[in-house]
Amino acid sequence: MSGTIGNKIKMSIFGQSHANAIGVVIDGLEAGLKIDEEQLQNFLDRRSPGKDEFSTIRKEPDKVEFLSGLVNGKTCGAPICAIIKNTNVKKNDYKNFENIPRPGHADFTSFIKFGESMDKSGGAQFSGRMTAPMCIAGGIAMQQLKILGIDIIARIDEIAGVKGASMFNKITEAKKEGDSVGGVIKCEITGMPKGIGDALFGGIEGRISQSIFGIPAVKGIEFGSGFEGSQKRGSCNNDDFIAVDDEIKTVTNNHGGILGGISSGMPIVFRVAFKPTPSISRLQRSVNLKTNECVDIEINGRHDPCIVPRAVPVVEAMAAFAIYDMICE
Amino acid sequence: MSGTIGNKIKMSIFGQSHANAIGVVIDGLEAGLKIDEEQLQNFLDRRSPGKDEFSTIRKEPDKVEFLSGLVNGKTCGAPICAIIKNTNVKKNDYKNFENIPRPGHADFTSFIKFGESMDKSGGAQFSGRMTAPMCIAGGIAMQQLKILGIDIIARIDEIAGVKGASMFNKITEAKKEGDSVGGVIKCEITGMPKGIGDALFGGIEGRISQSIFGIPAVKGIEFGSGFEGSQKRGSCNNDDFIAVDDEIKTVTNNHGGILGGISSGMPIVFRVAFKPTPSISRLQRSVNLKTNECVDIEINGRHDPCIVPRAVPVVEAMAAFAIYDMICE
Amino acid sequence: MSGTIGNKIKMSIFGQSHANAIGVVIDGLEAGLKIDEEQLQNFLDRRSPGKDEFSTIRKEPDKVEFLSGLVNGKTCGAPICAIIKNTNVKKNDYKNFENIPRPGHADFTSFIKFGESMDKSGGAQFSGRMTAPMCIAGGIAMQQLKILGIDIIARIDEIAGVKGASMFNKITEAKKEGDSVGGVIKCEITGMPKGIGDALFGGIEGRISQSIFGIPAVKGIEFGSGFEGSQKRGSCNNDDFIAVDDEIKTVTNNHGGILGGISSGMPIVFRVAFKPTPSISRLQRSVNLKTNECVDIEINGRHDPCIVPRAVPVVEAMAAFAIYDMICE
Amino acid sequence: MSGTIGNKIKMSIFGQSHANAIGVVIDGLEAGLKIDEEQLQNFLDRRSPGKDEFSTIRKEPDKVEFLSGLVNGKTCGAPICAIIKNTNVKKNDYKNFENIPRPGHADFTSFIKFGESMDKSGGAQFSGRMTAPMCIAGGIAMQQLKILGIDIIARIDEIAGVKGASMFNKITEAKKEGDSVGGVIKCEITGMPKGIGDALFGGIEGRISQSIFGIPAVKGIEFGSGFEGSQKRGSCNNDDFIAVDDEIKTVTNNHGGILGGISSGMPIVFRVAFKPTPSISRLQRSVNLKTNECVDIEINGRHDPCIVPRAVPVVEAMAAFAIYDMICE
Repeated sequence: MSGTIGNKIKMSIFGQSHANAIGVVIDGLEAGLKIDEEQLQNFLDRRSPGKDEFSTIRKEPDKVEFLSGLVNGKTCGAPICAIIKNTNVKKNDYKNFENIPRPGHADFTSFIKFGESMDKSGGAQFSGRMTAPMCIAGGIAMQQLKILGIDIIARIDEIAGVKGASMFNKITEAKKEGDSVGGVIKCEITGMPKGIGDALFGGIEGRISQSIFGIPAVKGIEFGSGFEGSQKRGSCNNDDFIAVDDEIKTVTNNHGGILGGISSGMPIVFRVAFKPTPSISRLQRSVNLKTNECVDIEINGRHDPCIVPRAVPVVEAMAAFAIYDMICE
Repeated sequence: MSGTIGNKIKMSIFGQSHANAIGVVIDGLEAGLKIDEEQLQNFLDRRSPGKDEFSTIRKEPDKVEFLSGLVNGKTCGAPICAIIKNTNVKKNDYKNFENIPRPGHADFTSFIKFGESMDKSGGAQFSGRMTAPMCIAGGIAMQQLKILGIDIIARIDEIAGVKGASMFNKITEAKKEGDSVGGVIKCEITGMPKGIGDALFGGIEGRISQSIFGIPAVKGIEFGSGFEGSQKRGSCNNDDFIAVDDEIKTVTNNHGGILGGISSGMPIVFRVAFKPTPSISRLQRSVNLKTNECVDIEINGRHDPCIVPRAVPVVEAMAAFAIYDMICE
Repeated sequence: MSGTIGNKIKMSIFGQSHANAIGVVIDGLEAGLKIDEEQLQNFLDRRSPGKDEFSTIRKEPDKVEFLSGLVNGKTCGAPICAIIKNTNVKKNDYKNFENIPRPGHADFTSFIKFGESMDKSGGAQFSGRMTAPMCIAGGIAMQQLKILGIDIIARIDEIAGVKGASMFNKITEAKKEGDSVGGVIKCEITGMPKGIGDALFGGIEGRISQSIFGIPAVKGIEFGSGFEGSQKRGSCNNDDFIAVDDEIKTVTNNHGGILGGISSGMPIVFRVAFKPTPSISRLQRSVNLKTNECVDIEINGRHDPCIVPRAVPVVEAMAAFAIYDMICE
Repeated sequence: MSGTIGNKIKMSIFGQSHANAIGVVIDGLEAGLKIDEEQLQNFLDRRSPGKDEFSTIRKEPDKVEFLSGLVNGKTCGAPICAIIKNTNVKKNDYKNFENIPRPGHADFTSFIKFGESMDKSGGAQFSGRMTAPMCIAGGIAMQQLKILGIDIIARIDEIAGVKGASMFNKITEAKKEGDSVGGVIKCEITGMPKGIGDALFGGIEGRISQSIFGIPAVKGIEFGSGFEGSQKRGSCNNDDFIAVDDEIKTVTNNHGGILGGISSGMPIVFRVAFKPTPSISRLQRSVNLKTNECVDIEINGRHDPCIVPRAVPVVEAMAAFAIYDMICE
């Protein structure tokens, strides 16, 4: 089941990079929720390509169309379907690689799994383009969370291992050399009510992870002090409790807002590792799947030297969906 | 839903640290699978307490009893239920902390979620003890995977940030000072068939993560080059393809055996960050939940200065369950 | 979760009677399945309105458009999305009943559940029109089952309690009098492999029922000898086993091809009770939801005096989906 | 997945007729629910064997033991596990039929599905005995529903086609002749809040059916006027709305309390068809699965000439579970 996620609210993503459309069905939303379509479109525009020097030049408006589920801008209790038409489709760009899997891409595993029937155009259902429908569902969730006082803000924490203003230079350098870089996005959820989540498999960490790993190119996630915390002592990593104005908080937040899988009321904090964009124009080695011959390939076409900037709203979207789903439960 | 996980095969864990028993129901297993009960018991013994100087002195045999689902040592197509009786229960150990949440534990969030009805003894359903039934279900999965030629081996990669033989000294030091340490477990799955998994939410990373975050104290996970990979360039992180004896492999394995959520046939590799055991005997600050008064607490009782050594088979078990579930799909 | 069903293959229906479109996402289909779009369109045409004297005069082509999931007429492993645009929408027809629930319809319960946000046009997500996307998903399942040698054929068994040729007169009579009639559809699945299904909640009866009760206006289902069988003695209702050409069959088929929830290899037989179309033009009593005043209403508009003939392919579709989902598991 | 059902609350049944124990895990219950264990035991006793002349003489106390999930008689937020030990196990009774499937039983299909690994004793996981754990989960649900003002009462409506006091004679007659009879149970749910359920696959009919068909020997279900309603005209089957003391009701209840899958506030009414007990001591024809030879068999052993009386609390239990699950959603 590649495109479906959620318990109380189910998101079913469909589409491929070069299909007629991509989109999402959202089932289980309460009736009467106001959807601000303009705000949603703005949210999607944040992940749209072609905005700055770092992103691919495939310019598509990514205009959201609602096919069902809304009456006068409000949910009516029926599932929502929203689509984005694929308008700027150039299948030929990928013709050369039909039998030659690009390193770091899903071409090889996709061929193994789906065989000759796989969609060979532009990453198909593995494409970063599939994050647009994620942003539709997640963007709707964010609007509802906002009303509940919950804010989700992600930002770039590292690019190519560099934190700070100079990190963008890393993209420019890589681009110049036909290469790419990865990075880390940090996400913070504030205003989170206490007591959401559950023990063991019902924990927030697991639920958010499942959502976040649905984003192509994600290879790691950590909550609170995460990997760094594993190097500390308990006396240093434990967060003492204090009472502030009759509300119990923790002095520090190494637990990232989650204890025993359940929200503590402190901000939920997690970091997500993105691998460098696998599409690079430098020479790489691969194998022709028909002939088993080793070949050198050079990938020319439109692609981002770093997808991290465009992935920021996607991380927010998937976190929002996971949290909203848990709250609605 | 705190105790249930799996798609084709469902594991339902039950029990609390101080309930009459802990156990698991496994639904969806094919009939005719041979379960080697002795080997399973040995597997469980690897996570049992009281084996060495680093672990708690609560000694329990953790003897697995099958209530259903097996006929002459083979699955019969009906769900398996296996239990472990809780024999060495000292509720009094925890009496003092009834209203005072221990830092780093689930006491506070559990109280917020469940209120006065929460089980206040020894971590209840949040206890590390719940990993024993995980090992039953996972141990059974491992036996089946073994037959398919798939091996899952986890090992301690770091303790308190130290790799290598001296890392165990870190536990001894911490113990001496009434403190605790965390660490990282690395897990490798070899013999993995190509083509398992799916795009987006059906990916192996998400499925394994969901399982692994069910283990108490896990705060991070990364696949392949993970966070370190996010610091590299694409040209360095991409794994070139080569043909070796007519089989296509990758030269390196930064992708950790997973491309586009699907197995490539290379070993699946992931690392899991465990926080330091929250139970320490050093003075900590907390708040009385009834009076909102700040208090200092000292936790005396049986607990591990580092749970990482005992968590090794648990990581194997949960990885095995996730992989076996995906293969059975 | 109103629109989602299936375990291994998930169907997510969306749309309302008067939305921009209705449609379905099908997730979990294997790659490489050939979809005969013309045959599928023909299948859908069987449930289309406006074909004969008994059905509503709302004429819509109900043309299926695939947005994703197919490449050169074959599944590519990504979810399929198929839609039907709603072209012949007359919202005014329903304006008069906005606050007056029609007897036998979902208007009242829909208002209670969704409040003012409900979609008030033409039955919305409760409309018989939602059976069109069911036919898309089910029609695809039928094509795959056909290849496996499994045929699903439904037919009208009763109309208004009458079996046989004269039963259609019952529709004509009812129509003349501004009234409607119900009926029973019998469905037979032949070529069914033995051993599909499972005990208890995994049984075929439960799986088919869940699918069939998704069809609006269904109020009963029985398998094999069903209600009549409950009046018999065991000696009469039990089906003796015999060996015919080395294959074990039953002499009779009171069990309807299902024993212990599992297929026996005999044809699966079930009957489905449809209530009379609730839309009738005769005077009925209702209550204004705003004023609580009792009112008399007369429903003029387009509607079928009997939906049973058009429901035949829908029963086939939903049975096919349930069976195909179970087989794929 | 044979033993698992439920969305917000999951029931996982385990055990076989002759395993060490049968039982159930209930995951997802809120913390703080009071469970009256004595009342629950009384409820289970209603389905226990050996109470009257009509039922089998296998006398077992069916004593419920809670292994987890309760603290001081209240749910603590962890999954409940409750078991019943199998004490009166006579495997030999079934030895003779090991390779000869009993007509009307699951022996044949079970053999096809599970092969030699099937549990051959006393119906195994297909046994009526599995309804005891259903009564545990359902009995707990009923206690909670009671607090919400919802009552579920099932009663025998027909035995062998006869309604009324004389229907029990049918059992006596059948018993005398080594035969068995079936019947119909009618269930009524009163105090049901309006607005529970959803359109299409989220409808109450589908949810209750899925639960009820989990009970062995059920072959049909109908809601409200059901099959009889399919013989009526719309003008006769539609239920007019009226306002009584400012509350909107229907004059009649042919819709059985469900319109568009959603509760109307009128009693939910459904009828369930049970086939005659397949175990009869009269001569029947079968086939030896090893030799394919036709054989005559006579089943001596303990069995009910009619299971309908004992099934009454089971129908209540499964209806209660389905309704409670929907309400908790």
